[in-house]
Amino acid sequence: MDTVIRNGTVVTASDSYQADLGIEGGKIRAVGKGLEGDEVIDADGHYVFPGGVDVHTHLELSVGGAVSSDDFVTGTIAAACGGTTTIIDFADQERGHSLHEALEARLERAEGRAVIDFGLHVSITDATEEVLEEEMAELVDAGITSFKLYLAYPGRYMIDDRSFFRVLLKTRELGALVLVHAENGPVVDYLTNKYLSEGKTSPVWHALSRPPEAEAEATGRALSLAAMAEAPIYVVHVTCAQSLERVKEARRREWSAFGETCTSYLFFSRQEYERPGLEGSKYVVCPPLREKADQEALWRGLVRNDLQVVSTDHCPFNFVGQKDLGRENFSLIPGGMPGIETRVPLIYHFGVNQGRFSINRFVELVAANPARLLGLAPQKGTIAVGADADLVVFDPGKEVTLRRENLHTNVDYSPYEDVTVRGYPVRTLSRGKTVMLNGEFLGREGDGRFLRRRRFLV
Amino acid sequence: MDTVIRNGTVVTASDSYQADLGIEGGKIRAVGKGLEGDEVIDADGHYVFPGGVDVHTHLELSVGGAVSSDDFVTGTIAAACGGTTTIIDFADQERGHSLHEALEARLERAEGRAVIDFGLHVSITDATEEVLEEEMAELVDAGITSFKLYLAYPGRYMIDDRSFFRVLLKTRELGALVLVHAENGPVVDYLTNKYLSEGKTSPVWHALSRPPEAEAEATGRALSLAAMAEAPIYVVHVTCAQSLERVKEARRREWSAFGETCTSYLFFSRQEYERPGLEGSKYVVCPPLREKADQEALWRGLVRNDLQVVSTDHCPFNFVGQKDLGRENFSLIPGGMPGIETRVPLIYHFGVNQGRFSINRFVELVAANPARLLGLAPQKGTIAVGADADLVVFDPGKEVTLRRENLHTNVDYSPYEDVTVRGYPVRTLSRGKTVMLNGEFLGREGDGRFLRRRRFLV
Amino acid sequence: MDTVIRNGTVVTASDSYQADLGIEGGKIRAVGKGLEGDEVIDADGHYVFPGGVDVHTHLELSVGGAVSSDDFVTGTIAAACGGTTTIIDFADQERGHSLHEALEARLERAEGRAVIDFGLHVSITDATEEVLEEEMAELVDAGITSFKLYLAYPGRYMIDDRSFFRVLLKTRELGALVLVHAENGPVVDYLTNKYLSEGKTSPVWHALSRPPEAEAEATGRALSLAAMAEAPIYVVHVTCAQSLERVKEARRREWSAFGETCTSYLFFSRQEYERPGLEGSKYVVCPPLREKADQEALWRGLVRNDLQVVSTDHCPFNFVGQKDLGRENFSLIPGGMPGIETRVPLIYHFGVNQGRFSINRFVELVAANPARLLGLAPQKGTIAVGADADLVVFDPGKEVTLRRENLHTNVDYSPYEDVTVRGYPVRTLSRGKTVMLNGEFLGREGDGRFLRRRRFLV
Amino acid sequence: MDTVIRNGTVVTASDSYQADLGIEGGKIRAVGKGLEGDEVIDADGHYVFPGGVDVHTHLELSVGGAVSSDDFVTGTIAAACGGTTTIIDFADQERGHSLHEALEARLERAEGRAVIDFGLHVSITDATEEVLEEEMAELVDAGITSFKLYLAYPGRYMIDDRSFFRVLLKTRELGALVLVHAENGPVVDYLTNKYLSEGKTSPVWHALSRPPEAEAEATGRALSLAAMAEAPIYVVHVTCAQSLERVKEARRREWSAFGETCTSYLFFSRQEYERPGLEGSKYVVCPPLREKADQEALWRGLVRNDLQVVSTDHCPFNFVGQKDLGRENFSLIPGGMPGIETRVPLIYHFGVNQGRFSINRFVELVAANPARLLGLAPQKGTIAVGADADLVVFDPGKEVTLRRENLHTNVDYSPYEDVTVRGYPVRTLSRGKTVMLNGEFLGREGDGRFLRRRRFLV
Repeated sequence: MDTVIRNGTVVTASDSYQADLGIEGGKIRAVGKGLEGDEVIDADGHYVFPGGVDVHTHLELSVGGAVSSDDFVTGTIAAACGGTTTIIDFADQERGHSLHEALEARLERAEGRAVIDFGLHVSITDATEEVLEEEMAELVDAGITSFKLYLAYPGRYMIDDRSFFRVLLKTRELGALVLVHAENGPVVDYLTNKYLSEGKTSPVWHALSRPPEAEAEATGRALSLAAMAEAPIYVVHVTCAQSLERVKEARRREWSAFGETCTSYLFFSRQEYERPGLEGSKYVVCPPLREKADQEALWRGLVRNDLQVVSTDHCPFNFVGQKDLGRENFSLIPGGMPGIETRVPLIYHFGVNQGRFSINRFVELVAANPARLLGLAPQKGTIAVGADADLVVFDPGKEVTLRRENLHTNVDYSPYEDVTVRGYPVRTLSRGKTVMLNGEFLGREGDGRFLRRRRFLV
Repeated sequence: MDTVIRNGTVVTASDSYQADLGIEGGKIRAVGKGLEGDEVIDADGHYVFPGGVDVHTHLELSVGGAVSSDDFVTGTIAAACGGTTTIIDFADQERGHSLHEALEARLERAEGRAVIDFGLHVSITDATEEVLEEEMAELVDAGITSFKLYLAYPGRYMIDDRSFFRVLLKTRELGALVLVHAENGPVVDYLTNKYLSEGKTSPVWHALSRPPEAEAEATGRALSLAAMAEAPIYVVHVTCAQSLERVKEARRREWSAFGETCTSYLFFSRQEYERPGLEGSKYVVCPPLREKADQEALWRGLVRNDLQVVSTDHCPFNFVGQKDLGRENFSLIPGGMPGIETRVPLIYHFGVNQGRFSINRFVELVAANPARLLGLAPQKGTIAVGADADLVVFDPGKEVTLRRENLHTNVDYSPYEDVTVRGYPVRTLSRGKTVMLNGEFLGREGDGRFLRRRRFLV
Repeated sequence: MDTVIRNGTVVTASDSYQADLGIEGGKIRAVGKGLEGDEVIDADGHYVFPGGVDVHTHLELSVGGAVSSDDFVTGTIAAACGGTTTIIDFADQERGHSLHEALEARLERAEGRAVIDFGLHVSITDATEEVLEEEMAELVDAGITSFKLYLAYPGRYMIDDRSFFRVLLKTRELGALVLVHAENGPVVDYLTNKYLSEGKTSPVWHALSRPPEAEAEATGRALSLAAMAEAPIYVVHVTCAQSLERVKEARRREWSAFGETCTSYLFFSRQEYERPGLEGSKYVVCPPLREKADQEALWRGLVRNDLQVVSTDHCPFNFVGQKDLGRENFSLIPGGMPGIETRVPLIYHFGVNQGRFSINRFVELVAANPARLLGLAPQKGTIAVGADADLVVFDPGKEVTLRRENLHTNVDYSPYEDVTVRGYPVRTLSRGKTVMLNGEFLGREGDGRFLRRRRFLV
Repeated sequence: MDTVIRNGTVVTASDSYQADLGIEGGKIRAVGKGLEGDEVIDADGHYVFPGGVDVHTHLELSVGGAVSSDDFVTGTIAAACGGTTTIIDFADQERGHSLHEALEARLERAEGRAVIDFGLHVSITDATEEVLEEEMAELVDAGITSFKLYLAYPGRYMIDDRSFFRVLLKTRELGALVLVHAENGPVVDYLTNKYLSEGKTSPVWHALSRPPEAEAEATGRALSLAAMAEAPIYVVHVTCAQSLERVKEARRREWSAFGETCTSYLFFSRQEYERPGLEGSKYVVCPPLREKADQEALWRGLVRNDLQVVSTDHCPFNFVGQKDLGRENFSLIPGGMPGIETRVPLIYHFGVNQGRFSINRFVELVAANPARLLGLAPQKGTIAVGADADLVVFDPGKEVTLRRENLHTNVDYSPYEDVTVRGYPVRTLSRGKTVMLNGEFLGREGDGRFLRRRRFLV
């Protein structure tokens, strides 16, 4: 073997057991006892997890006048340092342009720069006949097997119900998956303009202009349209109990419906927007943060499998020079929060240590399920012979107090500043190579490969 | 007293008791024993109900090339003969025209012709600033306190979510009520065109192009938008379990949401569309007829107060010369069925005789609730001192086999042909005057008055 | 007419309208305008309600060493002064004795003493063959159409599941109704003894030894047994969300199931037991007071018709000399609270004034529904020609601050001390006679008659 | 390695991947590629599953005058031949006797005879102080970590609510698990006697005397008692939608509640009891078979994780000489059906082949979950380094028509006669030794070991 990880407790979505892992050619080749290898890593007393899979990130995304502050280099380094070995980012079609153009532009940014493997979803904002009849099929053949659609942002990203329905019919035919950003765009825009015209410009109005029911309505609509198209659907960033209820109800009817939440919604609430000065702008995300009761509802959704994935929607903007663009107008605050580096330890600590779910469910939520749903299994998201050796050696006893200065994300604040977690990745391997050791990045720019994903099967 | 109805069993939404009713000046003036009057009507052994209130009719409505075959004369005569003493019909705005124009046009058709009292809802299809900022308020002042909005029929009646939301905000401000026709227009239109282009032209494809979930989705959306606007909402013609579920859920959350179903949906199912030849066209209505299980769900909805009103959506078209326009294309069949005359006896027989609900609940569903919700209480819909003497003397023992030839509706078929009911109105009074006696119309064209309705209060 | 109440706003479970009421021979004889009578009562600006019907009281009930401090004289005076004109109390079978003996003993206490009409439920604690095969039928014939069963108090009142089931089968046959006190006796007794043996003797342990789930379990069991017996069932004093859920679920399945809550559970919570000293003992009732969230759940149950009745479980004990028997042992505190006099104004103020429900629903909850369910309609519980003239003239503007010294109940404290309500009965009539005027009792001991009730029909 | 299984597709509750398995000392020692061993088993084209775990069997159980026809030899051979490598049977306390006596008696029957590993639950029917204060703890120390309680069979197995509650409190303290047979004994007994006394003696009355609600009630009660005791609970043989609803509701509240169904309830319905002659007696089980709609509800429960385990309740009786004891009286038919041998292929075929759930979920239901819940993980129920080499080589293409003559169970009929399944075990290994090959039993009497199980952890 090239490398052997010895004596760790191997954890998958269903099992925990002590064994050595043997790695060859970047893949897991053996699970056993007393394995020998050129490089031997001692994991005694540690867990060995499959590397985290974060299927919702926005690196170097241009939003209004701002570009999210992590590019494919810094963002993937942060991911690796936090125990994540695969991300899926987005290529957004511009109206009047093709999907291919969007994809090419993003590949150009990512290839040769990402330090861990990555995939791309393509967002359809202009469902022309060409998109529907040609491009979607070509992309699926090329390993882009998920498409994102927006029911928010009319005039920019939003597509109408007819196009939404047609894309769903097409994904069903092709074996692809629609991801939906579910907020009722017209209502949100109306309220935004109304509040701004009334001089209500501070961050709290960001939340008030995007009420939970606007999300729940769009979620329900997307699920209904998918049911009529008999197509699977994946709701990104479910933030509130109302919206979660729609996902539950759809699943109760055995529709092929899936729900994701993001770390931010599990930890923060609407109260953040009332912080003094412009502090609230740090927490501006879309959909906005909700009530504390919603946080608890989301955790329960994770426990009960009403939600299947925790991702991050990582989209950081610096407080100085970016977030402060919204000083006079909440709608100019670039929306997004960092999270790519802290997801794995936060979900471990607040999920497993606090008794909400088992360590196996933790692996399922942050690695196995996202890999399965987005066409990456069994290559990613589990520990099995034949899978990529994307692994995390995790010290369950290591206490870390999260601080911006110790994190690798390129952003001037951390929403988790001073939060202490017990349990932290001490080593990350990407296809067999150690890319992080004890908090230090050891990988190489451009080592991450673009992932051609499988068709949707679940 | 002008008139006394003696010895009947007076039935209201909450009580049943034997008493005489004294009428003066068209109003109920006394309830008691041994009342004397100029005219004495013996109701011994009979029920005395408040006259039926049918808040959803379409008399002489122009649909494509056809006009519904009952005008305000024949339609209201049929109503009176079937125990209904109040109807509310619709004035539909044409795009590019004002609400006032729509209202004037309809008043012209109705006034001087209707034989019982009538109100009008106004349908908004073009929510201009003028409509929102001026006309709605003027109409509410004039006693038009309900507005209908369509989420179906894009390009003709459908308004977009933004306009829908704005109208809701305005009704809340004005104390008015939105009625919504809830079907997802874009999906229905897409499927209709798809099926027609595939040569699927028979009536059954009418149902298949309007799936229950298209109704449920739009129902859910309308309810969510109303909840966000904090405005009351009334869903017309709920036809299926899925849609009913949305109404129930809204009511469970204590939103101000109300649901109506129509007689057709309680008695007929999708199987009717598979009748030989063009027979299925007789049953083409929008939304379409559903499954038998849905009928039972609707009855349960009435029992459990998830639905509050049974109306008719009366909109008859002759089989010969009208329904047959769709011989080659289901989308050309004028949609609608008769019902105005048979609602009261059908709901009595299949509701009360068959043990589904009490006689008081029957009165609530066909008279008291529609009157309350549409701003007609306490003038209509109950028997109380001060209310209009709109009354039905009902013989619970009279068996009638419904047949087109014995009905007064101006249409060449009856969907209820040969259905036998026990219990039938033998006398109908409109503001104290007998307008029907033993099946014979005794009223006078033009005696019906336009009703200025109250603001929404529930 | 003997008496005319003029110009009041008559309120029933479904209608509100201005009219005069004419009374003759103790019954309502006329509803109209301009009625004349020997005695004329001006109700201008006032509501005229049907007198309250309280179907759950325990006057002069012997509990351990204590007897509840209101007898049939003081208790019914208090009722009348608070706007209640009918009560139903209990005759509890003693083991080894017959139902008739129990009934006779209670009739002896009540007849010639009660100032308003009263009925009696009979509690079966020993379901012998004689009880099942003879006495139940005889009692139903005699107008005792409801039987109470206990799932709590093993060894004293509790009957086993087999007997419970047999009584249900019998009530179904006879047209009677089972009322159930639903708490799991064995669990409660086990916990009580456990806590006492651990030295946990203060009032708060009363609540902890009777957990909500012990009530919910027994409620669910009673409902299931009734469903299997196809017999109607009425759950007395539903106190918590869990228990309410069982009632809702039963009703959702269209079982013939009904739920009552009592004023105490709407206003007080478990926190009362933590009052200093022995103060908590004033709030000891069975089942115990619950959480604030349960109060809100109960109110919503009343709004949504998951619960149909508010009664009182009036069973007062003096703080000095009775409640203080439990100084060293919570299980010796006689369980019960006063309420008979304050129910009507409290439910009006906190229900209607606070916008929870309409004035008609108020009448339904405190008068119409209890009368219907317990076989007293249409004689009691409504205002209709032919009904008993049990009426309350209610001044909606009268503010009253409840104080023990102004109440008529014979007990040395009021749990509602210093609560202010707006709206209060200013006159109560029992079968046409004024028994209370402006807070002063004007009736006569013994004027109340025993009510032979109808069979269960709903 | 002693043995290597090569090239199979290894399937666990979460993963499927191609690998070799290396076995040493009866345990899985290595998972990898190109493993070498003394014995090499080619599994190319086959699945390798963890051996099935059947936690609900009744071998040589005495019921009335009959003893179930499989003893620990024939029963475990049948299990092994059908892909099951672990069973848990029962030791039932007799009233007046100790738990130890029960255990000893059963160990005597099983040890030296079973061909695969086995555990024992102990049924408590007489919860004396000695049982509660001494024996339970001793048994848990000895690896008996689950206790069965009956709410049915008064006078024989049933214990009262108080004892039930006390056992629950004790299991919580000890880390054990209560299994409950949930049917309301008093109701069932009452109905049984009633029907028999009315001359209703045929098998269909078996079902009618044990209505679904009698099961649902007892299920709800058991769950409530467990919730109050804060103890985990496992409901055996959930048979109907009503009962399943209680389990779902308990889990929704995040009680530690688990549900099992058995193969019979997934495949047969009440109609079987109407088979001609005494044929219906073959299907007499307790609880009885239900409606077809219940079957579908149970399958959905398995899909949605409302139920966690499929076991068999294997308890065969010969038609001739045993089942026919009930010729004149359904209550004398010994209750039970065979199933131990057919569970794995039936659930695979009707679950996986018919698209109800994934192959991983199949493994979870028949092996992983029962092992986890009953204290056998990670030794049993999964394929992981360190686990027992209890394995099934499964040919997904092999079609088998089930016939009594080809099965190994010692009973004269098969309820599954002529059912064809695709996919069947071709080899079973118990701790590394092949005990079945191509339908032939190759193991040895007495090789099965008694399993000391872990405490309950979930």
